[in-house]
Amino acid sequence: MDAREQALEARRAARVLAALPSDRRVAALHRVADAIGLQRARIRAANDRDLAAAKDAVRVGGMTEALAARLPLTDAKLDALSAGIRAIAAQDEPLGRILRETELGPGLLLRQVSAPIGVLLVIFESRPDALPQIAALALRSGNGLLLKGGKEAEHSNAVLHAVITEALAPDVPPGVLGLVQGRAAVDALLQLDDVIDLVIPRGSGALVQHIQRNTRIPVLGHAEGVCHVYVDAAADPDKAVAIVIDAKTDYPAACNAMETLLLHRDSLGGLGQRLCAALHAAGVALHGTPEAAAALGIPADADLRREWGDLACSVAVVGSVEEAIAHTATHGSGHTEAIVTEDADTAQVFLDQVDSACVFHNASTRFADGYRFGLGAEVGISTGRIHARGPVGVEGLLTTRWLLQGDGHTVGAVARGDWAFAWKRRVG
Amino acid sequence: MDAREQALEARRAARVLAALPSDRRVAALHRVADAIGLQRARIRAANDRDLAAAKDAVRVGGMTEALAARLPLTDAKLDALSAGIRAIAAQDEPLGRILRETELGPGLLLRQVSAPIGVLLVIFESRPDALPQIAALALRSGNGLLLKGGKEAEHSNAVLHAVITEALAPDVPPGVLGLVQGRAAVDALLQLDDVIDLVIPRGSGALVQHIQRNTRIPVLGHAEGVCHVYVDAAADPDKAVAIVIDAKTDYPAACNAMETLLLHRDSLGGLGQRLCAALHAAGVALHGTPEAAAALGIPADADLRREWGDLACSVAVVGSVEEAIAHTATHGSGHTEAIVTEDADTAQVFLDQVDSACVFHNASTRFADGYRFGLGAEVGISTGRIHARGPVGVEGLLTTRWLLQGDGHTVGAVARGDWAFAWKRRVG
Repeated sequence: MDAREQALEARRAARVLAALPSDRRVAALHRVADAIGLQRARIRAANDRDLAAAKDAVRVGGMTEALAARLPLTDAKLDALSAGIRAIAAQDEPLGRILRETELGPGLLLRQVSAPIGVLLVIFESRPDALPQIAALALRSGNGLLLKGGKEAEHSNAVLHAVITEALAPDVPPGVLGLVQGRAAVDALLQLDDVIDLVIPRGSGALVQHIQRNTRIPVLGHAEGVCHVYVDAAADPDKAVAIVIDAKTDYPAACNAMETLLLHRDSLGGLGQRLCAALHAAGVALHGTPEAAAALGIPADADLRREWGDLACSVAVVGSVEEAIAHTATHGSGHTEAIVTEDADTAQVFLDQVDSACVFHNASTRFADGYRFGLGAEVGISTGRIHARGPVGVEGLLTTRWLLQGDGHTVGAVARGDWAFAWKRRVG
Repeated sequence: MDAREQALEARRAARVLAALPSDRRVAALHRVADAIGLQRARIRAANDRDLAAAKDAVRVGGMTEALAARLPLTDAKLDALSAGIRAIAAQDEPLGRILRETELGPGLLLRQVSAPIGVLLVIFESRPDALPQIAALALRSGNGLLLKGGKEAEHSNAVLHAVITEALAPDVPPGVLGLVQGRAAVDALLQLDDVIDLVIPRGSGALVQHIQRNTRIPVLGHAEGVCHVYVDAAADPDKAVAIVIDAKTDYPAACNAMETLLLHRDSLGGLGQRLCAALHAAGVALHGTPEAAAALGIPADADLRREWGDLACSVAVVGSVEEAIAHTATHGSGHTEAIVTEDADTAQVFLDQVDSACVFHNASTRFADGYRFGLGAEVGISTGRIHARGPVGVEGLLTTRWLLQGDGHTVGAVARGDWAFAWKRRVG
């Protein structure tokens, strides 16, 4: 089956899926959750093949330990996957929700209702557990889905795809979830802007940028996460240390990890020194601007636009919350920024004016995540301003339709004065 | 000022605009509405220059009468513009609305709030009254706006832009609304995907396609409107005639005009003949499929994907509502489709399953319009499935931000079991 036929099949199957009653779409998700539990041995066997290949690759330097560590589908992970799919099944029905209802005039009722986008192409690296999560979000939202995983999880992805599509029968046509093999197939799919509605790349900035440059299909995602924590002059020192350490060290490679620490000039002495000491103790290499370096005794080699992705960060100095906001606008990637302060007014200025997908007060940047936000799971985190922004769950996979019900209404009748628009808003 | 500097200035100014209290943004809109009334003579003088040039152009065949007819800024149009701007000012405050609120855990509150997109580039042809309407929508939603109008309305656009930006003082920096001159400037702006967030072309399908092919900025709009009216076997004949005539003849060049009439096979004889006679009497040229042509005595030269844009339409025959739905999926442009029927079940199938931006029952396709939908005005109609779909008013010019307020919360504390996610949804 060529790329276009696979995409068209996903669209046809998605129309069948979306037309199913809610309870049958929910039942299909429970069958998928069951199957992942019941077919554990089959999944583990395939996963073992990927793990063996990864072990060899690490030995010869062809794969990092960190990448290999994301591959195992342990029993705990498979249990969590099933539970996550059941949680997505338990969410409120996303399709056909009435977002707005207006009586335009006598007997003429307009409704804006939620609907699936159509066909999604998701390209993900490494973690095979992303496949069932993304599949569950697409099934819940009535979308067709084409999935392309990484070579390093090839066998795991193939068996997960088989287990899931087998569980879709008898209601849902298996073509609703297509597994894409090989880079050439991806390149062909990226050309199909008449069939595929949205591309979601999950992986390195290089992957995202490559895709953005090679398709005319809208792309949802983030190329980089240059997240800031601003420690204000009115910060509580203990909270500042806890948040800064958590934001940088909980998972340094994550897109929502802190990459730049912004210190208020007035707290360079006491709290600034304490934060540096805590970061050093946690193994974090600090890279200061000239002013930060001079005041804190750290190297003067900050790179303010860099996503370190490791136990390292830049340290810069600002004189006010306004300067901190301007710094994030100039150097940030619009992902997540946090302020630590006990001053409510200062916090409000930061919350109001920082123009990023996620803006936090006295909380770690690491909370920027679909699961932690209560979305069940996420297909990705978007730093774009169009369609969906921040962590994207089921709602980001929806569009709307406008439904109008009349009784022979024409615009000519309005022009003739037979009736007039009244626009009585009932919902939304 | 070069294109990049103009776009950056719009972004800076938009940040000032969006940070203003709601009442001051509303007051600026009222000053704009006042100024359009007070500076009528200045506006008319500039418009007269465009009208004189258009008259010459029509004489030598350089412009159609239809295009020239869209240029005059009559007193009635200027009054309607001021009234429309006041209506947009009177709408509920669009910024900072809480769309979702969840207590993630003890003392950790997440809110998703509405926010401006950033900087919009709107390219429009002919009608100069589009400029104040679009400017009002951008000002209401806190966005920066770059406007490029057609050469034929050059003087009208320049003076409208001057009148509006003069009225913005003292609160709103005039750079929030940039007027773009010349095609080269547009081409330069289309390259600025790091500064401009959304392009909205309003004009011919050729214009829209040209822009889609020449930018990496997301494009909102429609290349074509191939709208269908399906007259079911259970249609009320009088309603069918009224709706079909309205949909085709009220404004044949509009994107929401009917381009294809779908007739149920069972009604080819009586109602089909009557519809053809009514369309003929209204001056509409009919182009049938072979079956329609044979049954109705019309030419067998249908072009089922064509946007006729004139007093002409295709006529095709289907055997059921399902066939009508399949026809719109195959040949339509996803803009607006209507069914005429007295059978509620059949209507529901059509409303549920037609995958277009607007789906109507017993109402003319001509209602697909931001003003008629009660949105105040529209920046355009989108047939895309990403971001906004159908008529786009203020809400289509918004994105969201996620605001999280805690008290020193870290994800490490969750891992240690200090507290657990509870996700209590309060709003949304």
